[in-house]
Amino acid sequence: MNRFITFEGGEGSGKSTQIRLAAQLLRENGIPAILTSEPSGTAIGRKIGAILFDRSHDSMCAETEVLLFFAARAQHVREVISPALAEDKVVLCDRFADATFAYQGSGRRLDMRMLSVLNDYSAQSLKPALTLLFDLPVEAGLARARRRDEKLENPALADRFEREEIDFHNRVREGYLRLSREDPDRFRLIDASGDVETVRKRVSEHLLRFLNRPAQAG
Amino acid sequence: MNRFITFEGGEGSGKSTQIRLAAQLLRENGIPAILTSEPSGTAIGRKIGAILFDRSHDSMCAETEVLLFFAARAQHVREVISPALAEDKVVLCDRFADATFAYQGSGRRLDMRMLSVLNDYSAQSLKPALTLLFDLPVEAGLARARRRDEKLENPALADRFEREEIDFHNRVREGYLRLSREDPDRFRLIDASGDVETVRKRVSEHLLRFLNRPAQAG
Repeated sequence: MNRFITFEGGEGSGKSTQIRLAAQLLRENGIPAILTSEPSGTAIGRKIGAILFDRSHDSMCAETEVLLFFAARAQHVREVISPALAEDKVVLCDRFADATFAYQGSGRRLDMRMLSVLNDYSAQSLKPALTLLFDLPVEAGLARARRRDEKLENPALADRFEREEIDFHNRVREGYLRLSREDPDRFRLIDASGDVETVRKRVSEHLLRFLNRPAQAG
Repeated sequence: MNRFITFEGGEGSGKSTQIRLAAQLLRENGIPAILTSEPSGTAIGRKIGAILFDRSHDSMCAETEVLLFFAARAQHVREVISPALAEDKVVLCDRFADATFAYQGSGRRLDMRMLSVLNDYSAQSLKPALTLLFDLPVEAGLARARRRDEKLENPALADRFEREEIDFHNRVREGYLRLSREDPDRFRLIDASGDVETVRKRVSEHLLRFLNRPAQAG
C-alpha cells in the first residue's frame, strides 16, 4: 500500500510547521514514518537547493529552474522515498510534483505537458496517495513568510521565490487549487488561515482517517 | 548562418587544448568568436558543474546527473550561445548535446529517445553546424588525463567521470563514433593521437574550410 503523503502550499502557508507536527503525531501513534522535503531531502538536493534559492541568481531561466528541481527529485525518489515506501513506512514529504506544476507550470507558465513528461522521468511515475494542500490568501501567506524571515534576523533572507511579484504567487495559488479540483480523491484542501493548533487538528483528522482506511490495492 | 561549432571527445582527447588554439586562430583571422564550454559556460553552470564533478557524490543517480547537465545547458543556450549566434559570432563550445548522448546515453545507458526529448527542451532544439570529434583509444586518453591531473599537483583531482571503469569509457567512445556515423555532414572525425601541433593543423583546416564555405541557409 502506497503511503506517500505530500504537504503542498504557497509561501507562509504553514505546511512546514504542520508537517513536523504530523511526524510527531505518527511517532506518538507508533506508525513508522519518515519526514523529508524537496529539494533538500538528500545531500545532493541540498546543494541543488542552494543554487535554486540564491537571490543573486536573477538571470536563471525558468527551464534551468525546473530542470534543477527535477534533478533533485530524481535523487530524492531513488535514494530516500522509494526505499522508505518499500519498507512500508509512511513518507511525509514537504513539497513534491504538485509544487512543480503550480510554481513552474502556473507561476512561470512553462508547458504543463512537458512538465508532466519530465516529472514522470524524474519521479519514476511515483505519485502521492494523499496530498494536503494548505490554502491561504497570497498576501496573508507572504506576510507570515516575512515575519518568519525577520525572526531569523536576516533581513536579506527572502529567497528567489518569496521575492516574486504578487501576480506570480496568485498564479501559484490558482494552479494549486486547479490541481486539487482535478484530483479530488487525492487532495484534501486545508484552510490554512487559522492558528497552528486549529490547523493541526484538521491535519490530524485527515491523516488518521487516511492511515486507518481499509487496506486497498496500490 | 548558424556558426555554432562544438568540440567533442572523451577524457584526455586534447579537445580543450585544441579549442583554445582554435579561438586564437579565429582571433588572428579577425573572425568574431566566443569560446565557451559545458557545463561551465555560465556562473550558474559552474555551480552545477561543481555538484556534477564532485568525487564525493558516488550515490548520484544517472537521471540526476543528466538533468543537471540539461539544467546547465538550458542556461548556457539562453544566456550565452543564442545571443552570440544572433550577433553573427562564431561560437566555439567545448562539449554540448553529443556529450550527453555519449556519456549518459551510451555510457550510463539512459534511454536515448528520452534524452533527445530532454535535450530539445533544454537546448531549444539548437544544433551545432559543425562538430569536431577528437578520437583516441581510451587507455591513451586516460593516461593523458592522469598526467594532466598530476601536473596540477593534486593527486585527488580525477573527477567522477575520469574515475569510471574502462568499460564506461569504451562505451562513451563507441557512442561518439556512432553519432558521427549517423550525421556525417556535421561531424569531422579527428585522429587525436598526434602531438598538439599535428592535431592543431588538422583542426585549422577543418575550421577554415567550414568558415569559408559559401553562405547557405540555416
